[in-house]
Amino acid sequence: MPANLPAALLSRPAFAAAFDTPAFVGAMLRFEAALAAAQAAEGLIPAAAATAIEAACARVDIDVDALVAEGRRSASLAVPLVERLRAAVGDAHRAHVHFGATSQDVLDTAMASCLKPCLEEADRALEATVRALVRRAREHRATPMLGRTLMQPALPITAGLRIARWATALAQDRERLAEAQSVGLAVQLGGAVGALEALGDRGAAVRHRLALALGLADARAWHVHRNAWIDLLGRIAQVTLTTGKVARDLALASQPEVGEMREAPADAGGRSSAMAHKRNPAGCALALAAALRVPGLMSVIHSAAIAENERALGGWQAELATVPDLAAALGTSLDFLEQVGTSLVVDAARMRSNLETYGGGAPPARLATDVDELLAELAPYA
Amino acid sequence: MPANLPAALLSRPAFAAAFDTPAFVGAMLRFEAALAAAQAAEGLIPAAAATAIEAACARVDIDVDALVAEGRRSASLAVPLVERLRAAVGDAHRAHVHFGATSQDVLDTAMASCLKPCLEEADRALEATVRALVRRAREHRATPMLGRTLMQPALPITAGLRIARWATALAQDRERLAEAQSVGLAVQLGGAVGALEALGDRGAAVRHRLALALGLADARAWHVHRNAWIDLLGRIAQVTLTTGKVARDLALASQPEVGEMREAPADAGGRSSAMAHKRNPAGCALALAAALRVPGLMSVIHSAAIAENERALGGWQAELATVPDLAAALGTSLDFLEQVGTSLVVDAARMRSNLETYGGGAPPARLATDVDELLAELAPYA
Amino acid sequence: MPANLPAALLSRPAFAAAFDTPAFVGAMLRFEAALAAAQAAEGLIPAAAATAIEAACARVDIDVDALVAEGRRSASLAVPLVERLRAAVGDAHRAHVHFGATSQDVLDTAMASCLKPCLEEADRALEATVRALVRRAREHRATPMLGRTLMQPALPITAGLRIARWATALAQDRERLAEAQSVGLAVQLGGAVGALEALGDRGAAVRHRLALALGLADARAWHVHRNAWIDLLGRIAQVTLTTGKVARDLALASQPEVGEMREAPADAGGRSSAMAHKRNPAGCALALAAALRVPGLMSVIHSAAIAENERALGGWQAELATVPDLAAALGTSLDFLEQVGTSLVVDAARMRSNLETYGGGAPPARLATDVDELLAELAPYA
Amino acid sequence: MPANLPAALLSRPAFAAAFDTPAFVGAMLRFEAALAAAQAAEGLIPAAAATAIEAACARVDIDVDALVAEGRRSASLAVPLVERLRAAVGDAHRAHVHFGATSQDVLDTAMASCLKPCLEEADRALEATVRALVRRAREHRATPMLGRTLMQPALPITAGLRIARWATALAQDRERLAEAQSVGLAVQLGGAVGALEALGDRGAAVRHRLALALGLADARAWHVHRNAWIDLLGRIAQVTLTTGKVARDLALASQPEVGEMREAPADAGGRSSAMAHKRNPAGCALALAAALRVPGLMSVIHSAAIAENERALGGWQAELATVPDLAAALGTSLDFLEQVGTSLVVDAARMRSNLETYGGGAPPARLATDVDELLAELAPYA
Repeated sequence: MPANLPAALLSRPAFAAAFDTPAFVGAMLRFEAALAAAQAAEGLIPAAAATAIEAACARVDIDVDALVAEGRRSASLAVPLVERLRAAVGDAHRAHVHFGATSQDVLDTAMASCLKPCLEEADRALEATVRALVRRAREHRATPMLGRTLMQPALPITAGLRIARWATALAQDRERLAEAQSVGLAVQLGGAVGALEALGDRGAAVRHRLALALGLADARAWHVHRNAWIDLLGRIAQVTLTTGKVARDLALASQPEVGEMREAPADAGGRSSAMAHKRNPAGCALALAAALRVPGLMSVIHSAAIAENERALGGWQAELATVPDLAAALGTSLDFLEQVGTSLVVDAARMRSNLETYGGGAPPARLATDVDELLAELAPYA
Repeated sequence: MPANLPAALLSRPAFAAAFDTPAFVGAMLRFEAALAAAQAAEGLIPAAAATAIEAACARVDIDVDALVAEGRRSASLAVPLVERLRAAVGDAHRAHVHFGATSQDVLDTAMASCLKPCLEEADRALEATVRALVRRAREHRATPMLGRTLMQPALPITAGLRIARWATALAQDRERLAEAQSVGLAVQLGGAVGALEALGDRGAAVRHRLALALGLADARAWHVHRNAWIDLLGRIAQVTLTTGKVARDLALASQPEVGEMREAPADAGGRSSAMAHKRNPAGCALALAAALRVPGLMSVIHSAAIAENERALGGWQAELATVPDLAAALGTSLDFLEQVGTSLVVDAARMRSNLETYGGGAPPARLATDVDELLAELAPYA
Repeated sequence: MPANLPAALLSRPAFAAAFDTPAFVGAMLRFEAALAAAQAAEGLIPAAAATAIEAACARVDIDVDALVAEGRRSASLAVPLVERLRAAVGDAHRAHVHFGATSQDVLDTAMASCLKPCLEEADRALEATVRALVRRAREHRATPMLGRTLMQPALPITAGLRIARWATALAQDRERLAEAQSVGLAVQLGGAVGALEALGDRGAAVRHRLALALGLADARAWHVHRNAWIDLLGRIAQVTLTTGKVARDLALASQPEVGEMREAPADAGGRSSAMAHKRNPAGCALALAAALRVPGLMSVIHSAAIAENERALGGWQAELATVPDLAAALGTSLDFLEQVGTSLVVDAARMRSNLETYGGGAPPARLATDVDELLAELAPYA
Repeated sequence: MPANLPAALLSRPAFAAAFDTPAFVGAMLRFEAALAAAQAAEGLIPAAAATAIEAACARVDIDVDALVAEGRRSASLAVPLVERLRAAVGDAHRAHVHFGATSQDVLDTAMASCLKPCLEEADRALEATVRALVRRAREHRATPMLGRTLMQPALPITAGLRIARWATALAQDRERLAEAQSVGLAVQLGGAVGALEALGDRGAAVRHRLALALGLADARAWHVHRNAWIDLLGRIAQVTLTTGKVARDLALASQPEVGEMREAPADAGGRSSAMAHKRNPAGCALALAAALRVPGLMSVIHSAAIAENERALGGWQAELATVPDLAAALGTSLDFLEQVGTSLVVDAARMRSNLETYGGGAPPARLATDVDELLAELAPYA
């Protein structure tokens, strides 16, 4: 059940599930289990301890309300979680639980683990969207329409050109996101001051095993120097902004006075509680809302980056609370892009008539060539 | 269960409850019930319809997941809620449900209704905090300590002066908040284009009854000109920022190298998952985290204010999703202030020794007079 | 000469002049002169010293580039300015220059002094704008037009209603601004740690004289508890956001496909460097650009408020740099509002034909009454 | 002369010069000259026209105040600039001035051109800083100090480890900046609707020549899909945030109660206008102020990215005004980093005594190995 119902509209079910409480607790427990396994493999704790910890992680029942209440007292969800896990493991192995790790290790890794399926889904959805837009751009490579600048008629373009530009921007965003993910979606393991001080000379080996087990990049502790992670978050932000731009274009084009494009056929989509006949561009509304949240969310993440010493006081906690909202904005964007990819309506006749009324003449034949050039660059999506 | 576990630390239980899904759905249903009652009283709908609607609001069982799923399709939670309510009311009165209202009326009023108990609690908690700080300031009116500027020793002040300044700022914030609340915490009722067009000449009377019933200010529809509401949100923000400043002061003072103040005695508070002996300023961490979120959250609210025509596309939805987070930040701030009010530790001996080591001489006697003057202005809190 | 040419478009000449380097240096010198006069009047420094300081302030020639270069070394423009002034005053009175004051006193007071004429101009311009809009609203009290929500046709309203709503919002913003100014546009005088420690029992009297001399409110030192000042800045922000909303409405209405309103007659306004025939809504572009800057600028001011101890390290300096940009945004907004007030074009015929095509029927007669009610509240502007 | 004196402290002289009015006007004129040359080379305009235009660009005298005043009327600095240039060129060639280009082409390219020397300087300064920090880290590879988390003592680290982490983060930021620059610091040439519609089949060739001439990347028109540019700006932001983190660390370490590090020897640096003996961490203050501005500045750039159609109304203009401030923040950061690189004071004795008092024992010998590993990765800087 969402904690904030109005915000629940600005998410995507799979993304909400990826960050919900069971998922996040599960990711924290997976960290502890995988950490124990890695430490046992490196001889730092007994194999029996790892087995016991893995078993406890699988069966421990976490009272979330109590976890949160205690977490407020320590400013850390990890402190009470580790306590419960230690209790569940029992006296024989309790000292091996969370061995050499710190709260931030669990929480940052859990956050990265929750984000991972979202990024995988984003990659697939962006690919599908670009493919669909490439098809639509090819279809409309020579469909003339009025180009508009500063919200006034400018010169003719083609519908294919506008769509191909959307596709190109999204394809570039997708590549940048994948690139940043390969570095920035990393395991966190550093211990109290980030130096893996308790693991002797096995620290790097444990971290590497942990990264492999969790499917995250291996990286030195990034407790306070979070630049690779922030770079990744910035690229998530960019996807939502490009999507917001597409949504704004569609919202403008679907004004009935313009009538050139719609996010979906008129019988689908957004109804009104006041006017039964009305069809709102509901997808545009949500995508724009998501995009409008992102500059503020990113500013929190940027502000939080000015961290104190070997672990921040306040900034890091503010960032943690913000990442799920940023992921939700990405999810909303993908929902909209998928809708556009499958349902975009282009009214070529209306484009032509608007062009005649407000524009001036046919677009130069070369514009279709322009589209072809963009599409050539997008060949992998054809 | 919180949707975003890391964010759950940055709330206050009563505030989280005020905005959680049952509370928000309840507030939407209260709007519909009170609207029907007001419309019946003004002769716009039959009394029997109002009775049926109130009964349905009391018993209707809302499947939240379905509500959210449908809400995504219309970009509005109100559309599916009204449908369910109409179904629950039955054919005889369905046309009288949500009569003359629009989605934004329900949602904005529900948001204001959820915020209302938080603001009442904030008023009480701020009053209690200021009272407590006034006591501590009087107690330490002549306790010398080193004043610090640009994070370097400056001239002597007194502990009482620093505390009395916190108290004064919080008392001013409290007054400003109450003032903005009296105008900005208002019912929303405007109908499709904000003109109460379906209610004939009874529109204002219905709105007034509705406001009284819900305990909100009566105000003309503020669908897109949300300046009184934003003013209120800005003053919520200010409370969190003043609190963040107090938290930063305390975090600096509780460095053991300084050791002059702590948020709580050493045996309370924030433990570490890595170092059993460590005591973190957990309250400061959460209050700072809350304060660090607020500039970004307010920037979303400000960005959303540049709204289109008679109802915004995207901006309003982004604002709605942000208000609960802003309220949560306020709740976290109050938790911290109450902790400081009851548990603040002042180490006068350490202050004196730091002053001797880094400062220079005793503070002028006049400083105690300064505190007295501030306290005189705070007489209502004595 | 503007330092940042693209930003120079987003100002208003009088506002740019109010904050330009000669004005800011002048304001700093006026502070020092008025401080000396006030201290002489209170017997803290010799009358001859005040006379010498006032004379030096009037004639001292400040090499701004050197001032900035030295200011970078001390993170303060006041340090080198005071040095120059001391040199100009000569040995006899140099100890009386800037007596008991600190850098922040000069800089905050100078900032408030530069802002003062802008706020006075804003008050006048807002009054004139509201008056003009009231006239236009009355003129169009019964001119039907299509109300639009979520960028789709909703129900009929009147042009007068839309314009009267703009006017009401601006009138409220004006009142709130004036109210916040009366408290928040205050002199700053606190000395090293804000306690006027060097002025003995004459501190408050000196500050009061200084406030009177500079036309600012008298207030206790607000070095780090800047809530009244931030409240004022927030209300400046609100004016720009309301204006941005008006600009967005006009930009949408002046799309030729809609054609219902324009910021100015077609032969005025924004030309294009690429298309000679094009007329861009240049005023809307600048007002929207100003409004779009404001959420980010306010977020800097909010972030900066989480200040350390008795004077912030970094935050305050960031705020200082931001206030002139915020004032510039206000100036741009006023330029646009004045343009709208004098030149707004309403095409009633086009409104009627759009209503027929996309809307449905005439607006209820009651809508004109609605306008009348809003205008009645705006009677002081009639 | 700076337009905003308090902001002038938050820049770097070379960066301020790179964006000042003569530089920006010069960059616009260089665009026009290089465009003409490229078009002549491609046979689109006569060679004589290009010669005349280049000559006019070299000698035209621009009245900046008039340019700004006219620019306000068209919401574009390019419109009046092109007019002046056409007048200067004379009737024979006036039609060849700015041929096929639009305002945004000139302005975006000028912005990129002004940013270019800043990025080159940033690359050099970052390299020098990393080199210097590598030296200091090696020097202190085994100097024990107290690691601090949540502003409380944690476990021992070494001074070399902290410094090597700074160096690693800055080296990564430098690489990411260079990578983004190679794509995002691009020429803008698109004409009215971004399709180079007036240049027939020579558009791409002209743009390529222009890019070469101006030393910018060649890229398709990015009028509204500005993702590569925003990516670059985000990486500039990251440098300032990493620097802000270093500044915060140093500000905390240079509290006299801690006394472990200082940005510069005690006889240098920030004086106070109130207390002659005081030495403020002036570099930290400016670097933190710059860093605190950046989240808000980036949020403007992000908000502006949700652009309308083929050219934005308002968003783009807001972005243009913001980029110089972002560059200024980068410049301030570099000033500070250079200062730290050359002047950082490490007080190993104080570190040891703090460790004894507040910490516990010597750091594990392995920590020096940790530093060595980080330094090995930084070998190119050794």
